Amino acid sequence: MSAPGLPGREATPRPLGVAAIGYAFMGKAHSQAWRNVGAYFDVPAVEQRVLVGRDPESVAEAAARYGWAESATDWREVIARDDVDIVDICAPGWLHAEIAIAALEAGKHVLVEKPLSNTLAESEAMVAAAQDARARGVQSMVGFNYRRVPALAYARQLIADGRLGTVREVRASYLQDWLADSESPMTWRLRKETAGSGALGDIASHAIDQVQYLLGDTVAEASGRLHTFVGRRPGRDGLEDVTVDDAAWAILALSGGAIASVEASRVALGRKNSLRIEVYGSEGSLAFDLERLNELEFLDGTGPVQEQGFRRIVVTEPEHPYLEAWWPQGHVIGWEHTFTHQIRDFLLAIRDGNPPSPSLEDGLQVQRVLAAIEESAAAKSTTVQL
Amino acid sequence: MSAPGLPGREATPRPLGVAAIGYAFMGKAHSQAWRNVGAYFDVPAVEQRVLVGRDPESVAEAAARYGWAESATDWREVIARDDVDIVDICAPGWLHAEIAIAALEAGKHVLVEKPLSNTLAESEAMVAAAQDARARGVQSMVGFNYRRVPALAYARQLIADGRLGTVREVRASYLQDWLADSESPMTWRLRKETAGSGALGDIASHAIDQVQYLLGDTVAEASGRLHTFVGRRPGRDGLEDVTVDDAAWAILALSGGAIASVEASRVALGRKNSLRIEVYGSEGSLAFDLERLNELEFLDGTGPVQEQGFRRIVVTEPEHPYLEAWWPQGHVIGWEHTFTHQIRDFLLAIRDGNPPSPSLEDGLQVQRVLAAIEESAAAKSTTVQL
Amino acid sequence: MSAPGLPGREATPRPLGVAAIGYAFMGKAHSQAWRNVGAYFDVPAVEQRVLVGRDPESVAEAAARYGWAESATDWREVIARDDVDIVDICAPGWLHAEIAIAALEAGKHVLVEKPLSNTLAESEAMVAAAQDARARGVQSMVGFNYRRVPALAYARQLIADGRLGTVREVRASYLQDWLADSESPMTWRLRKETAGSGALGDIASHAIDQVQYLLGDTVAEASGRLHTFVGRRPGRDGLEDVTVDDAAWAILALSGGAIASVEASRVALGRKNSLRIEVYGSEGSLAFDLERLNELEFLDGTGPVQEQGFRRIVVTEPEHPYLEAWWPQGHVIGWEHTFTHQIRDFLLAIRDGNPPSPSLEDGLQVQRVLAAIEESAAAKSTTVQL
Amino acid sequence: MSAPGLPGREATPRPLGVAAIGYAFMGKAHSQAWRNVGAYFDVPAVEQRVLVGRDPESVAEAAARYGWAESATDWREVIARDDVDIVDICAPGWLHAEIAIAALEAGKHVLVEKPLSNTLAESEAMVAAAQDARARGVQSMVGFNYRRVPALAYARQLIADGRLGTVREVRASYLQDWLADSESPMTWRLRKETAGSGALGDIASHAIDQVQYLLGDTVAEASGRLHTFVGRRPGRDGLEDVTVDDAAWAILALSGGAIASVEASRVALGRKNSLRIEVYGSEGSLAFDLERLNELEFLDGTGPVQEQGFRRIVVTEPEHPYLEAWWPQGHVIGWEHTFTHQIRDFLLAIRDGNPPSPSLEDGLQVQRVLAAIEESAAAKSTTVQL
Repeated sequence: MSAPGLPGREATPRPLGVAAIGYAFMGKAHSQAWRNVGAYFDVPAVEQRVLVGRDPESVAEAAARYGWAESATDWREVIARDDVDIVDICAPGWLHAEIAIAALEAGKHVLVEKPLSNTLAESEAMVAAAQDARARGVQSMVGFNYRRVPALAYARQLIADGRLGTVREVRASYLQDWLADSESPMTWRLRKETAGSGALGDIASHAIDQVQYLLGDTVAEASGRLHTFVGRRPGRDGLEDVTVDDAAWAILALSGGAIASVEASRVALGRKNSLRIEVYGSEGSLAFDLERLNELEFLDGTGPVQEQGFRRIVVTEPEHPYLEAWWPQGHVIGWEHTFTHQIRDFLLAIRDGNPPSPSLEDGLQVQRVLAAIEESAAAKSTTVQL
Repeated sequence: MSAPGLPGREATPRPLGVAAIGYAFMGKAHSQAWRNVGAYFDVPAVEQRVLVGRDPESVAEAAARYGWAESATDWREVIARDDVDIVDICAPGWLHAEIAIAALEAGKHVLVEKPLSNTLAESEAMVAAAQDARARGVQSMVGFNYRRVPALAYARQLIADGRLGTVREVRASYLQDWLADSESPMTWRLRKETAGSGALGDIASHAIDQVQYLLGDTVAEASGRLHTFVGRRPGRDGLEDVTVDDAAWAILALSGGAIASVEASRVALGRKNSLRIEVYGSEGSLAFDLERLNELEFLDGTGPVQEQGFRRIVVTEPEHPYLEAWWPQGHVIGWEHTFTHQIRDFLLAIRDGNPPSPSLEDGLQVQRVLAAIEESAAAKSTTVQL
Repeated sequence: MSAPGLPGREATPRPLGVAAIGYAFMGKAHSQAWRNVGAYFDVPAVEQRVLVGRDPESVAEAAARYGWAESATDWREVIARDDVDIVDICAPGWLHAEIAIAALEAGKHVLVEKPLSNTLAESEAMVAAAQDARARGVQSMVGFNYRRVPALAYARQLIADGRLGTVREVRASYLQDWLADSESPMTWRLRKETAGSGALGDIASHAIDQVQYLLGDTVAEASGRLHTFVGRRPGRDGLEDVTVDDAAWAILALSGGAIASVEASRVALGRKNSLRIEVYGSEGSLAFDLERLNELEFLDGTGPVQEQGFRRIVVTEPEHPYLEAWWPQGHVIGWEHTFTHQIRDFLLAIRDGNPPSPSLEDGLQVQRVLAAIEESAAAKSTTVQL
Repeated sequence: MSAPGLPGREATPRPLGVAAIGYAFMGKAHSQAWRNVGAYFDVPAVEQRVLVGRDPESVAEAAARYGWAESATDWREVIARDDVDIVDICAPGWLHAEIAIAALEAGKHVLVEKPLSNTLAESEAMVAAAQDARARGVQSMVGFNYRRVPALAYARQLIADGRLGTVREVRASYLQDWLADSESPMTWRLRKETAGSGALGDIASHAIDQVQYLLGDTVAEASGRLHTFVGRRPGRDGLEDVTVDDAAWAILALSGGAIASVEASRVALGRKNSLRIEVYGSEGSLAFDLERLNELEFLDGTGPVQEQGFRRIVVTEPEHPYLEAWWPQGHVIGWEHTFTHQIRDFLLAIRDGNPPSPSLEDGLQVQRVLAAIEESAAAKSTTVQL
């Protein structure tokens, strides 16, 4: 699908072979990105070699559908293959550490979905493996794909360029409603042992990563609260206890002096996938909503006050991050291309021998914030130092 | 201005005499309401007898401009007058308790601006005076005027009617930017001894009152944080310390099980007067922004999901609270009429001998929440029980 | 209510006496303005002397309610009174010419509601009377109140200042829905002999006035179409024919080269009072909606394209037209104050001996555009030159 | 990429071979759709056999990049190939007729981009060829891809289901700004002999197709105006005359009694790709903007008026058209998938032996409306009967 030997592309001995592990929601989204990245971006040639899953028939069907040459059921065999250069981990969180560490040790570049893992200890082991591998030229990246929303990448540019002056406040929320119905059934995502946490790890993690990414800063203190509104849900054998949070709240102090509030919920009826972020600085402000991901609102506070207002920038100009590859202005792109952009950047980093960002260390830092919020929540919201 | 003797109006021996104390921002807004209420609503006849202020020349000019028959400088003399039936207290917070208690003891109905006072002790004394007075048929009310925004009154109706099912989450913020400029000068509003607190008492109080009002519930636990971004501002003799908060954050648990987050800031650049409230229930949700006060967004979660969406209700139909008195549909009303409606309701309560709402007890309850947030903020955000 | 003798105000021998004719919708709105203008603006002192209507009891009640000293039923007697200096005509359109001409001849300043009259001949006679009167220092004005929406006044400033470059296109519509229900009954507004026309004269007239006002230009060519969707409506004695348009469309060419499209409807279900205007120029663009009258969207096309976007200006800063008189930023004003501002400007023009704007000539120019649209509509939309 | 033999899929002897002609903007967009359709939808297996263009080197690069097995430069040879079953025509409009007629005669299914051709005569010849071919089981379709925006497909459903009652008015516009800059250079799109028309054929055509599609009705009368704001633009050898319209306006009467206004412009500064459509009926209304293509605003006028409002439906539920194939709710899709959906429907129609929609007859009908608008514009906007 990509075109080796064309002008501006690296000559490579052979295309990079990719294996993806997992073919559910994330596997489908990542497959899309692998299938299409070369059609839009000048990246090293890749081949979708093998898709890995537990059920042989289902994974074979998914492989055929999503553009993979083969399917397999044993990830250990796959990461041992010579024709596999990249391992893309879309499996559930409790499998991340084992697979990622093995793949890195086998010399494969690793892309791992967020959250990094379900426990801090696992995350720390993954970071150690990533650091070892990096020293050997083996790269790794955690999949905070919303860093590749063009509007958010552009927001970071504006902040880094000083257009907001000193950032003071961030108001972030990630609201969904797929658990709003009390009759919605029990799943592995609602059990602490499999999911680690609820809205906190699943979606607040994205908001927290954005806070740190946009400001180029890290959280230093956290106060939090967790709550489960629907304590029991129908399982196979009657009602079962939900052991993760439906919603999470946190107040975060960043090292540089900004304060951020974060709220996440999977029971906020009417909000479908609404990651909203507002950033208030001394000279400018920003607002964003993932449900309108092609738009960024920017207020420039430096001109005459009577002319000021949040302007709705349709982030589809060739001058905007990633957009030159796509369609003419105003022809909006979809959520899936956060993954296309992620893989573009991952491949370019591999090509250039640079560590991609966000690193597993960045993923660990988010995990530490999540852990601090959980610790605070368990201690009557008392602020925890990171 | 009102029309005694018309059908549907109470026969009164003479119009109710009103005295207002204070003629700055709030005095101007309250005067508007007294001047106009009778033109729109069937209320007891009132006369704007006297406006009270410290500077004789300025208050005389204000009285002439705002429709008051006289001006005066000694509020004690004014509340002793026989032709004064109602005392409307628009003076700064540190004067509320003294004036309100004296007026109530003098048998005058009292409307007092929020926040009720600068200290809990004063607020408690005021409540005691109000309770004594109420037993004698003398009424009192605290000026949480946003309860009289038609869209918010309608929101309360929808919630009370069960249209949201069980309310789970409230996301509230009150963001302004008039202190965003670091060079904005020192004022009495930025000193703890005169203002009590900063964004917390000034505007978070409105948001907290709304949370309790809309849900018909009270806050049982509070965790909070306060922060001053601009620590020193130019005063008459050089830089002075700002001793109140620029911004406040709180996570509140209500007795009925809902959780509310509240954020208030006076440095949120680009937000002019943005009290935003989102309420998420098990069967419906609401969203509101004071900058668009004629609109309410309502999501009815009970129909087919493909038809659901936040609907923008233009709250200007005769069927909406207060609106029958105004203009045809779509002809929007302004912020000032929250006060017109407040005085309408105050006058009707006086006429009917009913205690108006919000009572001074309601004001005290808000003060207790504010105090709990301050206590929590001083203790590393540890949750405080109310 | 106003304050003669204060600094910055003209010394006047006595307050200007005002008579208003009509006390329905427009009379109520104008009364509001007369009652309040002096509380916000430094204008000559006025007294609400007399309100005129046909039914003695009703007009007496309205006078008491709306702040008028007296009521009367014979407008001829009223305009003859020495203590009446200003005649404010809120009567239906078919009475405009007779009253206005008589009042101007009697030496009274005249404010007359739009549309100027129901026929071109009447409008021309009114203009002749206004010109005669003007030569004698007697002023007149037609009530296109939306010129006094602060956001639209600011829009005109931006255009006049060249911020839009060359204006090319205007897209205007005025949509309401109070006739959307086919069962809504017959009224005088739906008969050609009393109303002149339907949506065309009632609301398209506002849109057309705005096109000319904002651009500082006049319509030179018009093509139009009129349509009545509900041809018969219930009257007292059964269904009656509706003889005016429910909706109107026009394409207008302005002398300066811009093209404007105008659409007006009273059956656009869900639009309550939505006068929307978009102006596209070579260097900037604007968008406005009367349902959000405190906001103006402005796009500045002169900066880097990646930073461009329609900015939502909350038109409530002291720097904005008329706003210094009102509330702090973000505290929005209502529709009624378009009339307060209109009367402010009318009074200042009288004080200074300047002809107020829009003049009766401006009103006639709008009537000519309306007539051209009707003529075109009757001739298969063939373009008519003005 | 597709998966023959899976449950629910037709057994086919071999995948359908596709040839695409043209690899610029439309060719890139269509290639995307061919490359991805099988990953999301259960459609007959297809193979991207050959991409055709004039420049051998460029088309070879594009073929490699966009997933085509081969490239070629002679479309006549390609349509003669036995392994080509489908011809997808993305070439400029003046080539449509020749290629489409030849391909249909060669027994290939044809998808042709809109507008159908540059002249009515060519379009009529294409329709004749399509009718002949259809009798032989050879299918054809014109690429009005916006019929496959899920929100618009859902809008059509709501209208067809009677949720709007009788549709009275449609207000449509398609505004872009890529020609707003007077210095933007001359291209083939600005010459009548190559482009046929300007904004009229390029984008008003989409709006007109939508009017007819949404209402399930046809235009019976048209009045129009065309205008070129920038008459000369820089070409290779100095300024050249622009011979097509920058903007177009039309008022259309539909057979069923509705009236539609249509406005299109490529100089509407700040509007990037804004196809806005509002539909007003007797019982409900709709609003849509292509810049927010995942949203539909719907007002249900049948409930209590105080609860009515335009609701913003995020059209991403599995219950919405096409959405079951995609991501979880709230995970928005991009503009490109209007083409993916178009090809899905095209392939299913081929599989089932049904004529796909919109047919070439539908394309011709739009051309007739465009011609009527041009005729009217040349005759002082006098209404033309279709």
